[in-house]
Amino acid sequence: MTQMEAARKGLLTDALREVARKESIPPEELERAVARGAVVIPANIHHRSLQPEGVGEGLRTKINVNLGVSGDCYDYSTEFEKVDLALKFGAEAIMDLSNYGATSKFRQQLIERSPAMIGTVPIYDAIGYFGGRKLAEITADDFLEVVEHHAMQGVDFMTIHAGINRRAVAHFRESGRLTNIVSRGGSLLFAWMELTGRENPFYEHYDRVVDICRTHDVTISLGDALRPGSIHDSSDAGQISELIELGALTKRAWERDVAVMVEGPGHMPINEIEANMRIQKRLCHGAPFYVLGPLVTDIGAGYDHITAAIGGAIAATYGADFLCYVTPAEHLRLPDAQDVKEGIIASKIAAHAADIAKGVRGAREIDDKMSEARRQVDWEEMYKYALDGEKARMYRESVKAEDERTCSMCGKMCAMKTTNAILNGEELVV
Amino acid sequence: MTQMEAARKGLLTDALREVARKESIPPEELERAVARGAVVIPANIHHRSLQPEGVGEGLRTKINVNLGVSGDCYDYSTEFEKVDLALKFGAEAIMDLSNYGATSKFRQQLIERSPAMIGTVPIYDAIGYFGGRKLAEITADDFLEVVEHHAMQGVDFMTIHAGINRRAVAHFRESGRLTNIVSRGGSLLFAWMELTGRENPFYEHYDRVVDICRTHDVTISLGDALRPGSIHDSSDAGQISELIELGALTKRAWERDVAVMVEGPGHMPINEIEANMRIQKRLCHGAPFYVLGPLVTDIGAGYDHITAAIGGAIAATYGADFLCYVTPAEHLRLPDAQDVKEGIIASKIAAHAADIAKGVRGAREIDDKMSEARRQVDWEEMYKYALDGEKARMYRESVKAEDERTCSMCGKMCAMKTTNAILNGEELVV
Repeated sequence: MTQMEAARKGLLTDALREVARKESIPPEELERAVARGAVVIPANIHHRSLQPEGVGEGLRTKINVNLGVSGDCYDYSTEFEKVDLALKFGAEAIMDLSNYGATSKFRQQLIERSPAMIGTVPIYDAIGYFGGRKLAEITADDFLEVVEHHAMQGVDFMTIHAGINRRAVAHFRESGRLTNIVSRGGSLLFAWMELTGRENPFYEHYDRVVDICRTHDVTISLGDALRPGSIHDSSDAGQISELIELGALTKRAWERDVAVMVEGPGHMPINEIEANMRIQKRLCHGAPFYVLGPLVTDIGAGYDHITAAIGGAIAATYGADFLCYVTPAEHLRLPDAQDVKEGIIASKIAAHAADIAKGVRGAREIDDKMSEARRQVDWEEMYKYALDGEKARMYRESVKAEDERTCSMCGKMCAMKTTNAILNGEELVV
Repeated sequence: MTQMEAARKGLLTDALREVARKESIPPEELERAVARGAVVIPANIHHRSLQPEGVGEGLRTKINVNLGVSGDCYDYSTEFEKVDLALKFGAEAIMDLSNYGATSKFRQQLIERSPAMIGTVPIYDAIGYFGGRKLAEITADDFLEVVEHHAMQGVDFMTIHAGINRRAVAHFRESGRLTNIVSRGGSLLFAWMELTGRENPFYEHYDRVVDICRTHDVTISLGDALRPGSIHDSSDAGQISELIELGALTKRAWERDVAVMVEGPGHMPINEIEANMRIQKRLCHGAPFYVLGPLVTDIGAGYDHITAAIGGAIAATYGADFLCYVTPAEHLRLPDAQDVKEGIIASKIAAHAADIAKGVRGAREIDDKMSEARRQVDWEEMYKYALDGEKARMYRESVKAEDERTCSMCGKMCAMKTTNAILNGEELVV
């Protein structure tokens, strides 16, 4: 039985109770949200080490860390170092995007080890899975075999680019894009469709995908193959027509008690983000929205964790439920461990800032504790509440301040100290 | 004659013509905006190396870099290294916050050397200026002497915390803040007022401040002494009551043809930013808004360039005209050169993203060029349009890609290459 089916039957699963506890929300309320699809609890029945999390309406915004080996970078120990960083800094999900080498073995180890939910994009793995076969030689059955293999291994959610069907491709071709298709999976499917002359296999055989996901309780993450890859292309007919398809596919999965998230942009100017969040919620019937970025300018290469944090914070404020991290390496190289860390922190900042803005239960508490520590100029307390206390400590301690209670930024002119002295009737040093 | 007076008299100054050219706006239109105070062109008559910029309605969002020597860090060469970074990455303003040592000499050199506009906060300098005198021993005349000294040296804009008068202090005391006063200048004035029992000298003698600024054409940047230092305190009575005072002070300066900017928060949750921008524009009669951050969460220590970039991008989208950069060192130490660089880039990203969102003339052009280069997988062109092309190059070249036209992130699975191959009828390598 899937989590969705259980919720619809009024059964409070252990996973649901755990999520309800973490979110300080009554289990019955959460159950109703899962039953109607507004919240998903990705929890493959084979993922035994999972500590489940919910994604969706009214819950904390979650973040995902991408990693995985590729043809140019295939050091497994580096990838496990990234896993450790993801867990240390509180990422709720890890997507394994491996597409080269011993992907199946790596994925198996990852699932065994990770309490965070695991996602994959089966099409990335398909080419390696079928040895030296060319893309156009892979059949629809082959693609589904990879999906089933991942499902049996314990993958909690899978990106399925079922929305880029022939109708959506026609809209894309008419929309005059600057950067065409920038989704890796989307471009492969587009190529496959053009080379074989056939319909998108994940669309044509969507019911079979849903069946596999139902059997193992995999949450479908409907991929946005036509996500805009530039400010220029954002919110265009290609993007929105695919979103319409994703909304229809969401309902079809729900009819079989299979949970769905919908993936979203991409590159997008700030003034279009709120509208996109509202349109997604409407077209996709309230399904959780999982966004990559959005990157609010195209010229931030080397700093796209920042362009994405800006867009992600705004997106989550207006309804996005799940943020895929972006690292400084985006558009330039496979991220190393330091890039991964910077990407995670930027994404956590965006998610947390949005949770404060949208009034998620308890979100402000840690900020208030931090600010109380600041007023008291209590550094150890500040390090405790900072997202990355180690960096905060290292920074402050790297430059000795004249007055050891202050920091080198303001020294004896510390506004906190000055104001405290006056309010508490103590002597002023300035 | 000040720039404002000239504009009101219908005289097109060289500075105004230059700004109009840079912004691609008709000089007459800019003149009207300067005349009514919606745009300022900070240009002290003694600052001969200045390449003037405009700040305000309809113009590109500008950014400011803080630097300066302090009791804990007084290496002048490091500060000039920061100046070079500010100029290299296109900061339009530099604020010299020096409060220790040979501040007058440093400021003089800075003004001689900098084409960017220079701002200061005279009260920071006052304590050092009057040797070993205690804060409470400095008189109102003394403070004004420092203001005049800076004005004569060629400072283009000065932060004057004239709004924290006795009325605003009463509101502050009633508002139950978590972090009280976090503005350095604000806390010093509060202390001075409490210790001496007198009214804020910059408020009491505001007409004399305006006279000095009129003589040398200094733009007054009305400081927000009561800016919130935590999410908890944002948009409270203390903050807004001071903003009311700043609005009244704006009008008084305008009556004497002295230009004004108004300074703003601070720490602020995302959901309050838009309202704050609109309230400032209303209460301050359309005067340009110069914001520090806002920082959208309190727990980002070590990464506050990111928390500030999120808030700054949103603020500028809804009306802020000028962003004060925040570095990763904020709250922890005086920033080093690397911190300064990261702060500048984050701030440039925020400003540019907002310019795209608010439809500033030509803002999107560079993004479109970048995206065109991306579609063509033309790396040299991408480095040219990236905000920091050197970092982008270094990143990509640090990991060799199998296919030299791609990068190590996707390698032969590059979505651009795949899509281009299909659209152009070329052979697919996947």
